[in-house]
Amino acid sequence: MSIVPTVYVDAMGGDNAPEVNVEGAVAALSETAARIVLVGDQDQILPILKIEGKKAKKEKELDRICVEHTSEYIRMDDHPLTAARNKKQASLNVAMKMAAADPNSAFLSAGNSGAILASGVMHMKRIPGVERPAIAATLPTIRSFFLLVDAGANTQCRASQLAQFALLGSQYYQFTYEGTKGKIGVLSNGEEDSKGTELTRETVEILNRINSAGLLKKGAFVGNVEGKEVFQGGVDVVVCDGFTGNILLKGLEGLASAVVDIMKLEIKKDLFASFGMLFAMGAVKRVKDRVDYAEVGGAPLLGVNGHAFIAHGGSTGKAIKSAIRVAAKAAKSDLPKALFSIIEETKPYITPQANRASGDGKGKQ
Amino acid sequence: MSIVPTVYVDAMGGDNAPEVNVEGAVAALSETAARIVLVGDQDQILPILKIEGKKAKKEKELDRICVEHTSEYIRMDDHPLTAARNKKQASLNVAMKMAAADPNSAFLSAGNSGAILASGVMHMKRIPGVERPAIAATLPTIRSFFLLVDAGANTQCRASQLAQFALLGSQYYQFTYEGTKGKIGVLSNGEEDSKGTELTRETVEILNRINSAGLLKKGAFVGNVEGKEVFQGGVDVVVCDGFTGNILLKGLEGLASAVVDIMKLEIKKDLFASFGMLFAMGAVKRVKDRVDYAEVGGAPLLGVNGHAFIAHGGSTGKAIKSAIRVAAKAAKSDLPKALFSIIEETKPYITPQANRASGDGKGKQ
Repeated sequence: MSIVPTVYVDAMGGDNAPEVNVEGAVAALSETAARIVLVGDQDQILPILKIEGKKAKKEKELDRICVEHTSEYIRMDDHPLTAARNKKQASLNVAMKMAAADPNSAFLSAGNSGAILASGVMHMKRIPGVERPAIAATLPTIRSFFLLVDAGANTQCRASQLAQFALLGSQYYQFTYEGTKGKIGVLSNGEEDSKGTELTRETVEILNRINSAGLLKKGAFVGNVEGKEVFQGGVDVVVCDGFTGNILLKGLEGLASAVVDIMKLEIKKDLFASFGMLFAMGAVKRVKDRVDYAEVGGAPLLGVNGHAFIAHGGSTGKAIKSAIRVAAKAAKSDLPKALFSIIEETKPYITPQANRASGDGKGKQ
Repeated sequence: MSIVPTVYVDAMGGDNAPEVNVEGAVAALSETAARIVLVGDQDQILPILKIEGKKAKKEKELDRICVEHTSEYIRMDDHPLTAARNKKQASLNVAMKMAAADPNSAFLSAGNSGAILASGVMHMKRIPGVERPAIAATLPTIRSFFLLVDAGANTQCRASQLAQFALLGSQYYQFTYEGTKGKIGVLSNGEEDSKGTELTRETVEILNRINSAGLLKKGAFVGNVEGKEVFQGGVDVVVCDGFTGNILLKGLEGLASAVVDIMKLEIKKDLFASFGMLFAMGAVKRVKDRVDYAEVGGAPLLGVNGHAFIAHGGSTGKAIKSAIRVAAKAAKSDLPKALFSIIEETKPYITPQANRASGDGKGKQ
């Protein structure tokens, strides 16, 4: 008899909470056999659950969704660390504590990512040996996807931390995309060994040592990788500090959004184009789906002893549905064991370098 | 009687040299009244010049183009500093020396940007007070453009250098887009003052001091700006260290290229879409033009005492034409005076912080 996994959803997290979280949970009933626990204000959640259940004609399956009531919640503009520590009954914290206590579960929230990070470390604790957890974002390549880690959890990092991000990311990638190698590249301003910052050069050194010791699959470390190559498909896991990762991610988001706006402006000016776009809509939608975060689920928090996923703050119900599906798959996996192993095996090769870090050398967050 | 400016073109620079440089020069004859000097191997250049002149039916105007012969050139994989110093007769260096000696001129090359930077500092010298020159890249906003500086000249920087990049960029922007304020933003992972790295926070401090002293136009400093906002049009000059700038620029290039490939794959699968795209081609082309670097000329090297422009290595003849046009406009301008003034006026507010820098604190390139 196999255990049914549970996804604990912070129903009050995100810009469109609790509606999209409830909507996503109901939709997810068709995509996963998992139990879903919606944590938050039942006075808001229950009515929406009833309506969504009716709309989707899933009233009978609603018994797979429970509501865990709490009236407190963390706001997007709350100070992350303070809120995670002090708002003990906040939906985010309650969901995290429940997930931490349940070995066949995962946590999901579209809320304050800094608070999710802090709460994850507090309740799930770090995998032994991990210095700092990181957030891994999924981005498209021409025919597949790659992970960018750290996508923004740690503004300033040490080389030892970046090396761990790489290892955790590689394991997670191989778990998500079976049969792959989880090929690691260190994001740099050039391929040559001499390029990059002190931080990236040192990270490459550490990963080279680990590779030479035979601890990675053959060909699983490609060295430096440039910004323009990452979308080509030759690298599965792209490693950088959280500041760079955030800038890149937000920059890409911003460009995509601006190009859509520029396209709308141009198409409006042009009847021919408007006509033509009607026919092209199918293909355009497929392209959009390839690059749209909504299709690829939440971003995992790598390095905590449990499964925690962060959904985009502006997530739609569809995005939450995908995120729940991805979280449920992780919930019944052996991923934590694989993550623990790789960290344990590589410990002798990773020496925290207190002097060499991006920024002030103190590795402050 | 106004002086005719001259553009000195390193004809041997770039992936498609000398063909595209000659092609671009001939095409530029219609877009500028400037003299154009093509520096490089005359045995390669002259035949192409004859052919291009005939093709474009501009044989009579060819007297505005001269060829300065030299057989040596710098290769893309040459060590930038060594090549700039030692290959004294390389086309890049000859063109730079000629431009440095001619007050109504500009330099242009699609070659090795590290060598262009080194050569610029050697021959044009830095504007008095400038610590390090930077490269400014032009990127699109929804309705206009913004400058990203440093786009990659200086891997690791101090706050004093970033502040100068901002000031030089702002002057250059106002010169290029008349009537604007050259609004400055410091690229960061969040708008709040507490966000960012030590480097970005210190840069914001310096620029705040300069702003408070009334040395910038009203509203010309907006503080931190996030990656996703930069395309919205609220900021004219986005400041970052060269490593971050390079990653962002190459990342954006890479995504744009991958999206085009994904679109082609999807459209091929779909007859409807192929049909529809025929009609939409005009609008799509206009969008492409908005974001295509070929339309916006070369990237200026800001901080040297002269006009030096760097064209993309893969530039087409059309891109070189645009770059020559932009360079010619700068050549007859008073820009160096404005740049000198702002650096001079702000000197008291910018203190080199030897301890606080990205990377190792030594500010190494």
